[in-house]
Amino acid sequence: MTTSQSGARERLYLFDTTLRDGAQTNGVDFTVADKLRVLALLDQLGVDYVEAGYPGANPTDTQLFSQEHPAKARVTAFGMTKRPGRSAANDPGIAALVGAKADAICFVAKASAYQVRVALETTKEENLASIRESVQAAEAAGREALVDCEHFFDGFKEDRDFALACARTAYEAGARWVVLCDTNGGTLPHEVEAIVSELVKVVPGDHVGIHAHNDTEQAVANSLAAVRAGARQIQGTLNGLGERCGNANLCSIIPTLLLKPDYSAHFDIGVSRAALADIANVSRTLDEMLNRAPDRHAPYVGESAFATKAGIHASAILKDPATYEHVPPEAVGNRRKLLVSDQAGKSNVLAELERLGVPVEKADPRISRLLDEVKTREALGYAYEAADASFALLARRILGSVPDFFDVERFSVNVERRFNSKGEMSTVAEAIVKVKVGEEVLISAAEGNGPVNALDVALRKDLGKYQPFISGLHLTDYRVRVLNGGTEAVTRVLIESADETGERWTTVGVSPNIIDASFEALIDSITWKLLKEGATA
Amino acid sequence: MTTSQSGARERLYLFDTTLRDGAQTNGVDFTVADKLRVLALLDQLGVDYVEAGYPGANPTDTQLFSQEHPAKARVTAFGMTKRPGRSAANDPGIAALVGAKADAICFVAKASAYQVRVALETTKEENLASIRESVQAAEAAGREALVDCEHFFDGFKEDRDFALACARTAYEAGARWVVLCDTNGGTLPHEVEAIVSELVKVVPGDHVGIHAHNDTEQAVANSLAAVRAGARQIQGTLNGLGERCGNANLCSIIPTLLLKPDYSAHFDIGVSRAALADIANVSRTLDEMLNRAPDRHAPYVGESAFATKAGIHASAILKDPATYEHVPPEAVGNRRKLLVSDQAGKSNVLAELERLGVPVEKADPRISRLLDEVKTREALGYAYEAADASFALLARRILGSVPDFFDVERFSVNVERRFNSKGEMSTVAEAIVKVKVGEEVLISAAEGNGPVNALDVALRKDLGKYQPFISGLHLTDYRVRVLNGGTEAVTRVLIESADETGERWTTVGVSPNIIDASFEALIDSITWKLLKEGATA
Repeated sequence: MTTSQSGARERLYLFDTTLRDGAQTNGVDFTVADKLRVLALLDQLGVDYVEAGYPGANPTDTQLFSQEHPAKARVTAFGMTKRPGRSAANDPGIAALVGAKADAICFVAKASAYQVRVALETTKEENLASIRESVQAAEAAGREALVDCEHFFDGFKEDRDFALACARTAYEAGARWVVLCDTNGGTLPHEVEAIVSELVKVVPGDHVGIHAHNDTEQAVANSLAAVRAGARQIQGTLNGLGERCGNANLCSIIPTLLLKPDYSAHFDIGVSRAALADIANVSRTLDEMLNRAPDRHAPYVGESAFATKAGIHASAILKDPATYEHVPPEAVGNRRKLLVSDQAGKSNVLAELERLGVPVEKADPRISRLLDEVKTREALGYAYEAADASFALLARRILGSVPDFFDVERFSVNVERRFNSKGEMSTVAEAIVKVKVGEEVLISAAEGNGPVNALDVALRKDLGKYQPFISGLHLTDYRVRVLNGGTEAVTRVLIESADETGERWTTVGVSPNIIDASFEALIDSITWKLLKEGATA
Repeated sequence: MTTSQSGARERLYLFDTTLRDGAQTNGVDFTVADKLRVLALLDQLGVDYVEAGYPGANPTDTQLFSQEHPAKARVTAFGMTKRPGRSAANDPGIAALVGAKADAICFVAKASAYQVRVALETTKEENLASIRESVQAAEAAGREALVDCEHFFDGFKEDRDFALACARTAYEAGARWVVLCDTNGGTLPHEVEAIVSELVKVVPGDHVGIHAHNDTEQAVANSLAAVRAGARQIQGTLNGLGERCGNANLCSIIPTLLLKPDYSAHFDIGVSRAALADIANVSRTLDEMLNRAPDRHAPYVGESAFATKAGIHASAILKDPATYEHVPPEAVGNRRKLLVSDQAGKSNVLAELERLGVPVEKADPRISRLLDEVKTREALGYAYEAADASFALLARRILGSVPDFFDVERFSVNVERRFNSKGEMSTVAEAIVKVKVGEEVLISAAEGNGPVNALDVALRKDLGKYQPFISGLHLTDYRVRVLNGGTEAVTRVLIESADETGERWTTVGVSPNIIDASFEALIDSITWKLLKEGATA
């Protein structure tokens, strides 16, 4: 690996483009509020640059950059180099970039002779001029300039001199970073290493960045290969978010840089070990914000990243888990999951109960009962990993007791599609719920936009003396999964609820009948809320 | 890269362990029938070895290996080397392996001094003897022997000589392949390349295999790094299936080997270009079999692998898509998706209609209408990529007509939870459907294990003169997704149906009301079946 000749540690910079390149993923849309939330998350993580958007290209980004957003990270605006045939001063794209309230501007430029000819329909000299004048415009406005050399690797293979000329022009014009982009994602790590080795003879490595895509499943390897060849900035996204096969995954790269000695012994990055211990949470938060199913098998941060069937070496693992784990799960805010051994299962359960604040003695024999109950139910489809409130209730029922706040004696949910009074086909959903609260019997009815919504509203409409406790309770997310498929299918419903304090919790229900499954999760949610409020039966 | 000195092409071997290492993934279970189906798939693809299971370790695998399963691939049985302290002849594990009806046996052996001491609690010499005698036992039984050197890279870093001794012992005992396993998945590509380079001085590269795991997201890179250093067998799984973060993904590796000149110019593999053109289908088939949501962003084979927002270079892409794609999508059985340009959208739609056998003229102005309708509906949540029958019906309605087979004038679905006659709480689901078929009005009622099941049964109970046409129709899969979350949530339902011919089709429905969404998908399914049967209104 190319490192400083003195052996001194070097600084590696992380550039996050979740909010720009990541945002180009089909189905991903950030509002301004979303972007600010992600910016805060990234800032806390410790990345050096946050490419927050493309001002002028869409209303959200234009609005975002109309105000300053103080952050430790350098907030970066993305856009194109000056168009050929006009001056930088007369280029609206440049104007938008320079007018944006950002610390840095990242210009995307062509670095491929073919692209210059066919896509831009201009000359090589014009392209170099565009690069030069764009960088100068940024500097004149007091902004740090970066230049993304698009199609760099394909361009280098086709016309080496021109690709290098583009990079050098950017550097000589004063760009802080010249970023080599594998735009099509098809370059292989050994090619990246060879090409970057050539480039750093022309642009010093501490001014070179790498922007890889995952089209051969080697974006992480390509990023590290570039670093090995001398590059000192890595561009990527959280969870590898990005169109096609995604960008380089910072949630895989950051832990590798901090936990693998071949990198951690040579490089400093802006992410601290403490921030690293929160990265699993950062990853999950982004997925939840985008309503994307998390990748259970994601390296480091995935739910299953440290889950292994213990097999016949249970005792060996328990003696020294390090022999079966390449890094300690806690270092990345994850945890070990041993799926077979009762002994290990028990310590998982204890850890979870402690986390939930359920008082328990280690030696309590009922813990084994709880463990058995969890295993049995998980085989039926319950997912207690995700449903913390349902797990806590299950634990309290087995280890102690949960007050009988109310009892649903009956419910009826009806969905009917028929001609309405105007002669149009319409569908209505209604629910009736009969609840016993103490000695009181209450019947409530409600309509909803669907059967579950109707049932939810009816359940929470009148709980007698408990009504004040649940007034702030509302459903924030509803997830359905059909397990086993076919005729033995069961439906698992996960409901996330929140209350007036902003606190959130998740409950689960399982049944072949989706209404029943939803009912189970709703009841748990209400019960948890009452428990939380200290209501008494 | 280390290649033959004469420049002659070399053979690279592919070893698939989807059915063994892949099967260890939590939630993945193969029946014997499933395994035979996957074996056929892999055989057709052209892998050289299929590690079909671990006879003696579980009933499924024991049963599988009790019979011969002819295949072009070498069917391989996995198991452990002889346990210390007993002879190979007296080792039940060896007996099970030798007794298995397989072409090859893959023994997993320790190659780490630490593992030998702590996990096996034996000596280095005993371990080497276990390797030697196990290989000899396989050979005596006329089987090809492979040895998986577990924890090889960690073992090499800790005690280089012992790791090499394990590998050499296996080779000298007659093993066809010595496979270096990165068991914890934490080794980096440059380390793999360096270590394999050392090993091939001791075991010839054409007897060396690599078995990588994806714990730093570099299993593919590690596999290729080993090949570059001289290894000639790659072990992996379809879709990177495997516990924790998965095994090396053959669906990423195979296309890379065939389509990237740095590999295709030097190596021959068992997978032909024709078989490669089916790999997206192979990937999808496995996911469907396991009821796993496919990874849309998977390299090469993912639904979005070649989907890009055209941006401002629509014209450039259309002139020469190759400039924006690292390989042609057709080469891997995938297709280009351009998401913005109307012109491009049109050619996608035309291609799909042709595929579905819907007769249409290219210049038909209604095609733009269909395109608009698709875009509008997809923005609402419809997913026509997945729901081919619903798309075909939509197309036929716009481009021509679909007969009015029947009309559902009304339905009512009721789910009720109450005390039954035995005093137990139970939930029942019923549906009533009022259908007009021609002049006939029919009312049917049905119960079901849930509201959608009840509605489905009621809908198909009596369709008058069409009843014979739909007698073989049944629901094979039901998938629900809640889009947008929160209060503006809509539910998207995908229903897969099949009939007596075994043919399958998928239909979609979208509504805030899950029953309504299911109803929409059910109606489309029945209508499609009637159309297919040539029923007339």
